[in-house]
Amino acid sequence: MSARHSFLDHLACPRCAATHAAEARHNLCDCGSPLLARYDLAGLGAALSRDALTSRPPDLWRYHELLPVRREEAIVSLGEPMTPLVALPELGRELGLARLAVKDEAPLPTGTFKARGAAVGVSRARELGIDRIAMPTNGNAGAAWAAYAARARMGCVIVMPADAPLINRAECIVTGAELHLVDGLIGDAGAIVARTVAAGDAFDASTLKEPYRLEGKKTLGLEIFEQLGWRAPDVIIYPTGGGVGLLGIWKAAAELRELGWLTGPLPRMVAVQASGCAPIVRAFDRGLAESEPWPRARTIAFGITVPKAIGDVQILDVLRQSRGCAVAVDDDAILRGQAAIGRREGRFICPEGGATVAAARALRHSGWLKGDEQVLLINTGSGLKYPDTVAAELPVMQPEESIVRAPARP
Amino acid sequence: MSARHSFLDHLACPRCAATHAAEARHNLCDCGSPLLARYDLAGLGAALSRDALTSRPPDLWRYHELLPVRREEAIVSLGEPMTPLVALPELGRELGLARLAVKDEAPLPTGTFKARGAAVGVSRARELGIDRIAMPTNGNAGAAWAAYAARARMGCVIVMPADAPLINRAECIVTGAELHLVDGLIGDAGAIVARTVAAGDAFDASTLKEPYRLEGKKTLGLEIFEQLGWRAPDVIIYPTGGGVGLLGIWKAAAELRELGWLTGPLPRMVAVQASGCAPIVRAFDRGLAESEPWPRARTIAFGITVPKAIGDVQILDVLRQSRGCAVAVDDDAILRGQAAIGRREGRFICPEGGATVAAARALRHSGWLKGDEQVLLINTGSGLKYPDTVAAELPVMQPEESIVRAPARP
Repeated sequence: MSARHSFLDHLACPRCAATHAAEARHNLCDCGSPLLARYDLAGLGAALSRDALTSRPPDLWRYHELLPVRREEAIVSLGEPMTPLVALPELGRELGLARLAVKDEAPLPTGTFKARGAAVGVSRARELGIDRIAMPTNGNAGAAWAAYAARARMGCVIVMPADAPLINRAECIVTGAELHLVDGLIGDAGAIVARTVAAGDAFDASTLKEPYRLEGKKTLGLEIFEQLGWRAPDVIIYPTGGGVGLLGIWKAAAELRELGWLTGPLPRMVAVQASGCAPIVRAFDRGLAESEPWPRARTIAFGITVPKAIGDVQILDVLRQSRGCAVAVDDDAILRGQAAIGRREGRFICPEGGATVAAARALRHSGWLKGDEQVLLINTGSGLKYPDTVAAELPVMQPEESIVRAPARP
Repeated sequence: MSARHSFLDHLACPRCAATHAAEARHNLCDCGSPLLARYDLAGLGAALSRDALTSRPPDLWRYHELLPVRREEAIVSLGEPMTPLVALPELGRELGLARLAVKDEAPLPTGTFKARGAAVGVSRARELGIDRIAMPTNGNAGAAWAAYAARARMGCVIVMPADAPLINRAECIVTGAELHLVDGLIGDAGAIVARTVAAGDAFDASTLKEPYRLEGKKTLGLEIFEQLGWRAPDVIIYPTGGGVGLLGIWKAAAELRELGWLTGPLPRMVAVQASGCAPIVRAFDRGLAESEPWPRARTIAFGITVPKAIGDVQILDVLRQSRGCAVAVDDDAILRGQAAIGRREGRFICPEGGATVAAARALRHSGWLKGDEQVLLINTGSGLKYPDTVAAELPVMQPEESIVRAPARP
């Protein structure tokens, strides 16, 4: 293990090229762009080899040199296991994809990949002396940040659409966050948070408005590449709302390439959205650099109901740089995707994950995916948070009744 | 890695001392007792050192020599991460326990520890050529076996009380199991399964009626002891319904002791039950070797609503051998325990886990637990499966409203 816990060097603006000291609290750059954490990768490469990672504990902190937390004691952890990357042979047969797999984020605390951003974001916030954060959320991010804030003994203001899944409310309440519901979408929640922040009542932890959530999401990419033997799959299909996970995977690839740890071609990145809220898909198809706000956004995949992502320019840039694409799928296809992976592979995924199955089916059908390509679906969370996506009406037997032999599994 | 994948030797009856070949399908011994898997521990100890485990992938199959699956290709896996063992400093302060920790089983597939038994049980069933299983369940075990059976392309008949959590129905349906609901408790479900099995329609995978679910649960103990540096904690508090996890932890300890891998004192084992269904506690208090069926069983911790466990004799034996105890806690205390760990530690646990918090509080209060003892709570599953345990009624803001500054976290 190297002596330096983090090789974080400074914060950089990708738009105006300004640099900022990493030890101060920052939100957006003065020019309005999100800031990116930059590391001393030369120093890191001299101090650590990728093989040295093998014997470390299997959690996201194994990558601590590439994360922004300076002191090990500042880490706020709920126990973040490396998540499984699992082959899907039966679903692959159905879709005509011989090398289909899923990276399943359900094992993380609070049951979604949002825990990655919260673990690193809250740890770094605590290290910088922040004692109260505020954020808008479609539900899962708020639940994750509420959990880590509780563990950190930090105040936490969460503003959530009233239509968000009920389980997300319960999660915020049980962990003691200050939860507020709004009759609106995530943008309305964001405006309320902005007023609270402007009043000096909390630090703004909104998506990409502080630089460290992205660093947590980056560990999704670090794990994928390590689990595949420091190679990238041909294609990664990602359900895109705010898109921080997609940006994080791409940032991981860039840093690992610079370190010389990741070799071979980079993956083609696919953003899947619901046809009821597809601003990235529309902008991609029209060749635009930025998305337009999507009117009357609505989909069963509530987590990706983001009418205008703050990182849209960067997302579109990654899709094009990587020779990827953007695809919209409707709610029926999302639910069919969720059902197919359940029945074929025994995995109960969230609707956002179901969207990646639907996208894989559509892209294979169109020929954009070849049958022998290695395709990785990102399932961002557990289906347990979405009981209403499965119809469960059944007759009730009396104890003295017997089961009539059902036909064999088809 | 040793060449032999499993050191399973034979099956033994702990009551009549009969032995059975491990390669045939078995349910109970002819004498009516559950059968136990026995390993060639001398051969295993010669072929493998505990230090060699360190570099293996962090999942339950790292212990494959101590598991019954003969061939690696027979493994049916959904990706079973090692689960976190996490210190609880703030809750410990509240309870007066300086060395309190939790082993949190939520990251496993289907969100509960039942995945351990299902992963090993289904793998071994498939290896033995079984193509259809049946079992009664309070919900979570059925969900886990349904998921692994789907992955194994195996038929799966699940019989569940109609009062079981709705999420468990959804889990069985989405993974394609043949789900039946009964107007009764788990014993009624068991009687229906028994008739299906007697008709030759499926293999009986009920708790302890086949020997390999217990082997899966054993990995809970193997992980605990490895994570603690091959030492046992002073006390393990386990929410007890069927009690297979408790028996599994104890079997792990016994085998590791025989291998010389686990040194120091064994843990005192505590069985916690709900006061609405506490047959083990009553039998323990009365000095009985066997429990009596609990009439009108009812508790919010549905997973431990087992009026008469088939392994009750073995459970009571472990409690006494280990100088442990049995304790009943009421539903209010269970919910207070769940809320306390949420607020203090950011962890949303299941009501059965909440019962362990309540038990720790009661046993510290009575002096049975000392303040400096290392106490490990077993949280058997995610709180996400029990949204109704948290009240989530809140007013809804309009988008133009602002948050009135709330008081700081108490």
